[in-house]
Amino acid sequence: MKITRRSILAGAAAIGAVAAVGTSTSPAVAAPSAVPADKPVKQPGTVEQWGLYEIVLKGPEKGNSNPFVDVTLAAVFQGAGQAITVPGFYDGNSTYRVRFSPPQAGEWTWKIESNLPPLRDSGRVTVVAPSAGNHGPVQVVPGGYHFAYADGSPYRQIGTTSYSWALQSDEKCALTLDTLSKAPFNKMRMLVFPNVPSAVTDPFVRTGPGPKDWDPTRFNPEYFTRYEDRIARLLELGIQADVILYHPYDSTRGYSDMKRADDERYVRYIAARFGAYRNVWWSMANEYDGVKTKTLADWDYLFPVLQAADPHNRLRSMHNKNIYYDARKPWITHASIQNPGAALDVIRAQLHREFALKPVIFDEVGYEGNISQRWGKFTGEQITQRFWNSFVGGTYCGHGETHNPEKNPSTSWLGQGGTLNGTSAPRLAFLKQIMDDGPAPGIDALQPWWNYDTGGVDSQYYIHYFGEDAPTAWDVLLPNGAPQTYRADLIDTWNMTITPAGTFTMAKTDAGAQDPARPTVALPGKPWMAVRFTRV
Amino acid sequence: MKITRRSILAGAAAIGAVAAVGTSTSPAVAAPSAVPADKPVKQPGTVEQWGLYEIVLKGPEKGNSNPFVDVTLAAVFQGAGQAITVPGFYDGNSTYRVRFSPPQAGEWTWKIESNLPPLRDSGRVTVVAPSAGNHGPVQVVPGGYHFAYADGSPYRQIGTTSYSWALQSDEKCALTLDTLSKAPFNKMRMLVFPNVPSAVTDPFVRTGPGPKDWDPTRFNPEYFTRYEDRIARLLELGIQADVILYHPYDSTRGYSDMKRADDERYVRYIAARFGAYRNVWWSMANEYDGVKTKTLADWDYLFPVLQAADPHNRLRSMHNKNIYYDARKPWITHASIQNPGAALDVIRAQLHREFALKPVIFDEVGYEGNISQRWGKFTGEQITQRFWNSFVGGTYCGHGETHNPEKNPSTSWLGQGGTLNGTSAPRLAFLKQIMDDGPAPGIDALQPWWNYDTGGVDSQYYIHYFGEDAPTAWDVLLPNGAPQTYRADLIDTWNMTITPAGTFTMAKTDAGAQDPARPTVALPGKPWMAVRFTRV
Repeated sequence: MKITRRSILAGAAAIGAVAAVGTSTSPAVAAPSAVPADKPVKQPGTVEQWGLYEIVLKGPEKGNSNPFVDVTLAAVFQGAGQAITVPGFYDGNSTYRVRFSPPQAGEWTWKIESNLPPLRDSGRVTVVAPSAGNHGPVQVVPGGYHFAYADGSPYRQIGTTSYSWALQSDEKCALTLDTLSKAPFNKMRMLVFPNVPSAVTDPFVRTGPGPKDWDPTRFNPEYFTRYEDRIARLLELGIQADVILYHPYDSTRGYSDMKRADDERYVRYIAARFGAYRNVWWSMANEYDGVKTKTLADWDYLFPVLQAADPHNRLRSMHNKNIYYDARKPWITHASIQNPGAALDVIRAQLHREFALKPVIFDEVGYEGNISQRWGKFTGEQITQRFWNSFVGGTYCGHGETHNPEKNPSTSWLGQGGTLNGTSAPRLAFLKQIMDDGPAPGIDALQPWWNYDTGGVDSQYYIHYFGEDAPTAWDVLLPNGAPQTYRADLIDTWNMTITPAGTFTMAKTDAGAQDPARPTVALPGKPWMAVRFTRV
Repeated sequence: MKITRRSILAGAAAIGAVAAVGTSTSPAVAAPSAVPADKPVKQPGTVEQWGLYEIVLKGPEKGNSNPFVDVTLAAVFQGAGQAITVPGFYDGNSTYRVRFSPPQAGEWTWKIESNLPPLRDSGRVTVVAPSAGNHGPVQVVPGGYHFAYADGSPYRQIGTTSYSWALQSDEKCALTLDTLSKAPFNKMRMLVFPNVPSAVTDPFVRTGPGPKDWDPTRFNPEYFTRYEDRIARLLELGIQADVILYHPYDSTRGYSDMKRADDERYVRYIAARFGAYRNVWWSMANEYDGVKTKTLADWDYLFPVLQAADPHNRLRSMHNKNIYYDARKPWITHASIQNPGAALDVIRAQLHREFALKPVIFDEVGYEGNISQRWGKFTGEQITQRFWNSFVGGTYCGHGETHNPEKNPSTSWLGQGGTLNGTSAPRLAFLKQIMDDGPAPGIDALQPWWNYDTGGVDSQYYIHYFGEDAPTAWDVLLPNGAPQTYRADLIDTWNMTITPAGTFTMAKTDAGAQDPARPTVALPGKPWMAVRFTRV
């Protein structure tokens, strides 16, 4: 996929493309320069459910005022029996925008509320059925440990991280998107603020030549327009954008070290700008406990700010360095865990569900690579192993790669995107196919108290993963005593083969169910094997 | 140790003995029968720090009134710059008591507040230094994952459970105490309400012959006097009493199914009666999520009730069945986890610290025994293994035993106490000695991200446990690069031997520290081994 400079950087044109994502009926938004100030822009008349509907408004130029601070703006959308207040934002050049992703089809009206009278307007929009491929936002399956799209389609998370990919040159971004189009990943963790050398580095308006010479009250619209274009490109590929609001890797610019009022404004701006993209997730911070200028109380304060600013109620998580954030807090939708040892067996992974009582994603379990630091020189086998343990444990995992010729993590996939040079990605594509062929919304570790190391859905589907062990046989003892028949498959998770292994017809025993005629399954005596039983 | 019927059952005499626990100067309290009603009892003039000071008061008989409900009673103690309000309780027979365990030595005054004027009294008490063996209550070492006595002495928890031991015949209780006097356990989990056939079963006054014919507003003082005598006997043996207020095993009597007002009264009564014993811990419930008549909101309500009623601020925890209680809640002092798989390796154990950010005790990880149920037929090796993993993981573990000739868990140690018939207890005594010989307050899993399976205190002490593995050598690679010299010991955790293995003088390497002249330590190729390094 080739991205031209124009389509990425030209603000209005890019937005027009964005508004059309998954929306066959939305015309491109007229370029603001064609609209006289103080006159409302003609808004599009239709949008599809879960699409992005944007109201563009032109306000007066007002001398020394700061519209980012001085202007209040929100639209109340009414339709389908709901009234939803959607905050707007200032996009520079006298242009204000309100973005709404309608949760239901039907006729909706909207009315702008603002302290700037020329912005007060109203209108209506017809929300049509979603087009093919638009499954809505990813949500947590209620009361459970798995995800699904809003239309009920399964979503099995296979994540990756490229912190500052969206901030690289257009050519590099195009390369990253091309790589992603051929990779299994359906979630990308990405920082808002840069952490490695980047083509764009100014989310705020600069006030002087020094690294800290920037004005936290004045956003740089071009920076955010560019970033949200990358979100839209991910959406075109069916990839969720796990937008990371803060990180601890930048003491030079200090974007994560703002004061509370500035943090609140920033969080609200991000929510208003990005929240209507249906593939957005919120990761409040990467390694939150590494941000030395913020306390736990600060984070606990900012989450409700984000919730209040986000009528789309996107997924919310917090990624740790050394101290797990409490995923049971009410504003957290799923645990985002960094711990390379945590996915080293099925039960360790599963224990995190016991902790969180929510879905668990091991976001960054170490990076496949060739750098000297321990965290960045995992083998493809080690990364793949962690994904498999996570899967069998009823949890999810995230990939990262530091492999590059320079042995430099900053310029690797992890830092800047580009190409993947490791060996795990194809194996994760193979795993994704195994997941997609399995039960929806996902599987659970069975009998975790008893170290059974088998995941599945009882009486339907079982999968046992042997990891580094290389047994030549396994006792096929299934937990449920029901006399079912199962088709068995040997899965070589590294060589990516599936070999049928006949059927097992179970009979009740003291410890579960076993086929009296065939109590064991033969295995090839090599590592990275799994065995799968699917009820016939 | 022989307990006579008299010393256990005679209320005042037993109390007198209790008041003297660890208190060389406290005289026995005069028997209430010797005191005319409406006259204050002469109170003892001295008590030792952390001892139990009891004010005995006689109130008027008042026809049909219910003193458990109608009378308010508390004493304000002032001394050492503190004012502490201590709730009292009605003990039947027109007798009221206030129990206080002074946290500091010095001159203290007290003043009774009550809605019953004859109870209003005041006095003073001299709090003297603790006698030998009185280290105060066990507390959480601030900000950490370990426990210590109030005087700073180490407390390394080696727990056991005997649910209804305290409710058995005096002879059986004496046998249990005799067993405990020869065992390593320094904490006993014990139910207030019976769960197995017991000699006493009426915590409340009975109102008829049916199992549910009891009055939740009228406690049975004899039941509680007897129970607290058992707490005092444990204290004499240096054993903490983890008093379990509720459990889900009794649908016949329904003591755990009271209404909220009755629950509140019960919690306050327990706190007022038992809280001044310095060896008391509170376990709000055993398998809390098995109590079907209470919701999570009910438990979250009762904890603050307990906190408010307990000026002694004893340790508080909640024990789960299937759903881990959130140990980060502010009223929880340490995680109490039931999960037989959770202590099956060092990292799994350690992960619970990440979750709780508090000390972790695996209270009941399965029971050594010979019953048919899976949870009650662990081998001694399996129980010992879980204790060692917990130890190396910087956590603590709890024992239980269902071994008995009848293969009946109700009549086993777990249910009723008596004798221990398993093989783990001597190995836990050996482990306790290893713990006592190690750093205080305890050790931590080192480099848990990296599956290092080694606990210790960096640059001082390291211990690696091999569990079921039976290697013939181990690469001695310590995490810290400092060039220290360590004395090594091979520990056979099952055969209880410690074999010196010479010294290792470390030099910095890429991955930590290693002795260039001696990079490995030879091991005997059998399971249940550990290797310990103590800095010379």
